[in-house]
Amino acid sequence: MTSSSSNRDVAAGRSVAVEHLARQAREASRAVARLSTESKNAVLMDLAARLEQDAAVILKANERDVAAAGAAGLPEARLQRLCLTAASVRQMAEGVRQVAALDDPVGQVTRQYQAANGLSVAKVRCPLGVVMMIYEARPNVTIDAFALCFKAGNACILKGGREAIESNRALGSLAWAALEANGVAREALSLLAASDRDEMKALLRLDAYIDLVIPRGGVELLRFVHEHSRIPMVQHFQGVCHIFVDVSADLDRAVDICTSAKASAPATCNAVEAVLVHEQIAAAFVPKLAARLKAEGVELRGDSVVCGLAPKAIAAREDDWGREFLELVLACKVVGDVDAAIAHIRRYGSNHTEAILSNDPTSQQRFLDEVQASCTLVNASTRFNDGFQLGLGAEIGISTSKVHAYGPMGLEELTSQRYVVRGNWQSR
Amino acid sequence: MTSSSSNRDVAAGRSVAVEHLARQAREASRAVARLSTESKNAVLMDLAARLEQDAAVILKANERDVAAAGAAGLPEARLQRLCLTAASVRQMAEGVRQVAALDDPVGQVTRQYQAANGLSVAKVRCPLGVVMMIYEARPNVTIDAFALCFKAGNACILKGGREAIESNRALGSLAWAALEANGVAREALSLLAASDRDEMKALLRLDAYIDLVIPRGGVELLRFVHEHSRIPMVQHFQGVCHIFVDVSADLDRAVDICTSAKASAPATCNAVEAVLVHEQIAAAFVPKLAARLKAEGVELRGDSVVCGLAPKAIAAREDDWGREFLELVLACKVVGDVDAAIAHIRRYGSNHTEAILSNDPTSQQRFLDEVQASCTLVNASTRFNDGFQLGLGAEIGISTSKVHAYGPMGLEELTSQRYVVRGNWQSR
Repeated sequence: MTSSSSNRDVAAGRSVAVEHLARQAREASRAVARLSTESKNAVLMDLAARLEQDAAVILKANERDVAAAGAAGLPEARLQRLCLTAASVRQMAEGVRQVAALDDPVGQVTRQYQAANGLSVAKVRCPLGVVMMIYEARPNVTIDAFALCFKAGNACILKGGREAIESNRALGSLAWAALEANGVAREALSLLAASDRDEMKALLRLDAYIDLVIPRGGVELLRFVHEHSRIPMVQHFQGVCHIFVDVSADLDRAVDICTSAKASAPATCNAVEAVLVHEQIAAAFVPKLAARLKAEGVELRGDSVVCGLAPKAIAAREDDWGREFLELVLACKVVGDVDAAIAHIRRYGSNHTEAILSNDPTSQQRFLDEVQASCTLVNASTRFNDGFQLGLGAEIGISTSKVHAYGPMGLEELTSQRYVVRGNWQSR
Repeated sequence: MTSSSSNRDVAAGRSVAVEHLARQAREASRAVARLSTESKNAVLMDLAARLEQDAAVILKANERDVAAAGAAGLPEARLQRLCLTAASVRQMAEGVRQVAALDDPVGQVTRQYQAANGLSVAKVRCPLGVVMMIYEARPNVTIDAFALCFKAGNACILKGGREAIESNRALGSLAWAALEANGVAREALSLLAASDRDEMKALLRLDAYIDLVIPRGGVELLRFVHEHSRIPMVQHFQGVCHIFVDVSADLDRAVDICTSAKASAPATCNAVEAVLVHEQIAAAFVPKLAARLKAEGVELRGDSVVCGLAPKAIAAREDDWGREFLELVLACKVVGDVDAAIAHIRRYGSNHTEAILSNDPTSQQRFLDEVQASCTLVNASTRFNDGFQLGLGAEIGISTSKVHAYGPMGLEELTSQRYVVRGNWQSR
């Protein structure tokens, strides 16, 4: 046997294996769709208890991941996302309990009316079926995604980053134990560990068994899924979020908002990446902002005007515009007016989150009308585009797709709606 | 120049041309998104008037299409769908006026609340952007799709069947005239005539400019789009619709419903394709149904039990189950109980429309809970799964995808929803 035909056999074997896994997920999804709210909540409460009881096991598995990733030279920001602590495991358990406490979307009647022809029509929420999520090395996503998909009546296939393989296995074991202890098929959750591209390609063709794929991560991951998926996709693309500080802004509070929108959680997708400053307030605002950023350890990269006003700023390169830094770096540019800010955002934004700080209703409205984003804010930080902050209870991520879901994806966004019609023996 | 390199040049030229077209549609979509309701309605009322004034021009163009398609041997059912009459052109105009009369979805606030953090949050309907629809040779779809996409604030790219090319050009000219007379860019509507596969493939990769593609047609079209599209897709797949006649059904009214659900419009996607009959009433029901079908000119294809009870029935072949006949042919099978009916539908249905005729609440509920379809009906014809009948006002087709829209797609389903948040200078 030649090496190339042997490679083909291995690839074919893997493709059969992922098809088997997806078919089993489809089977399980039929049972999950019919579970009562009580049964689903029992699984979730059980999982929360196990997460707390077995925290040491999870942390030990995570230590192995972190050690291996550190040895392999994973950048610091990604190491941080990979790393679990006793507190973050407790937080996971709390998150699962919060999902259990949320209303069950399945079976909710979102509209009910009598049509002109006398039919009684209801629109009823139903599960999507099998949801696949592909994400990076953040072990907490494994538990969040399972809890939300399951509560919404779906089976899920989760493919986390390879650096988190031990952590995800430990977490998966707890979920499987909770499912089985409550009489639910363990195939309600499938974990995929390997990140072999052929296996991924094979999976992404299985639209017969998988109803939705949610890629959540950087440009390359999104591009790969986009290129190869036949499964409907809701993308959670990077957040290149801007704040425009208008001429009428309250400068001190604008400094607070811009600084915390970066420094409070620089690696999140709703953190601000670039501040656009109206030229008439630049001389007053930029030095204040620069001083606060410096105090918070944020590196400022500015255009020539900004660098003139803040001598410690670094000159921004062209590729700093439209860039998701994911660290304590903020770009800053001076613009002529709200239209120039809108034009900059149209060119460099990623449809994620955009904010205007302004006391002028005309500028506010113009910004709201012209800027495309899943969330547009007036006089508030970009970091409020978040499922908890907006009152959805929990979220699986923030969609930058307009189709199906736009913005934070909570339980409702993990369902579909079907028509249920009751007649009185009407013909047509 | 060799012939192959010349072919490549032609293909490259076409690919540049479709990209140019899509980019212009994207530009136009920004303007359409901002049009007032009054401006959109003015265009639609103008178009309706032009359709009536220029009916003769449209009918003449359509005659050329029908003559060419007849000469090329197009099957009768497809010829009928291609053919326009004075009445059907009047109906198109009426349909456009009805769309003008519908509420504008753009800017509608679907939820408004104050979040726990004090932010004022609104979910606001927004256009999708550029919608592409690919359909077969039904010229009326050209006008329906343009009217709905435009009223929902979208630019559209329409690709109808090649047999309807002259009709679609005549209809498109009226729409362009109505747009230009009202100061709207004609690129709000693009028509693609050729059905060259390379051109289609090039278009289906333009997700940078096109937000949604809606293929509406048979298996091959759907498969092609599915295979090649990078653009989010809502598929309008064939309707393999079933009616299950339960043991407790009112037999005479069941005969009425089953017969009209096929005979009233056999070529529509919500027509019934197969009737499943509970074995305990088969002897009473099947002969009655067979007699009525015969009177209406419907061919009956049955399993062996049906053929025993209705001697004129033709023995169904395996591939008659799960088949969309699109003509006066109905399959019929006897099943043991509601579970057997559900199992048959799970195997052969297309997630479109399924109905149960029964006076037993337990069977009804079991059917509603277990059958997957965009619309499930109790004691009514499958043909009620229709945007007008269900009170949506108008529809662009019936989605069999669960993601984004499931069931009739009206104005709302041609929009997305974004968050608009107003704060009081909150940091985070």
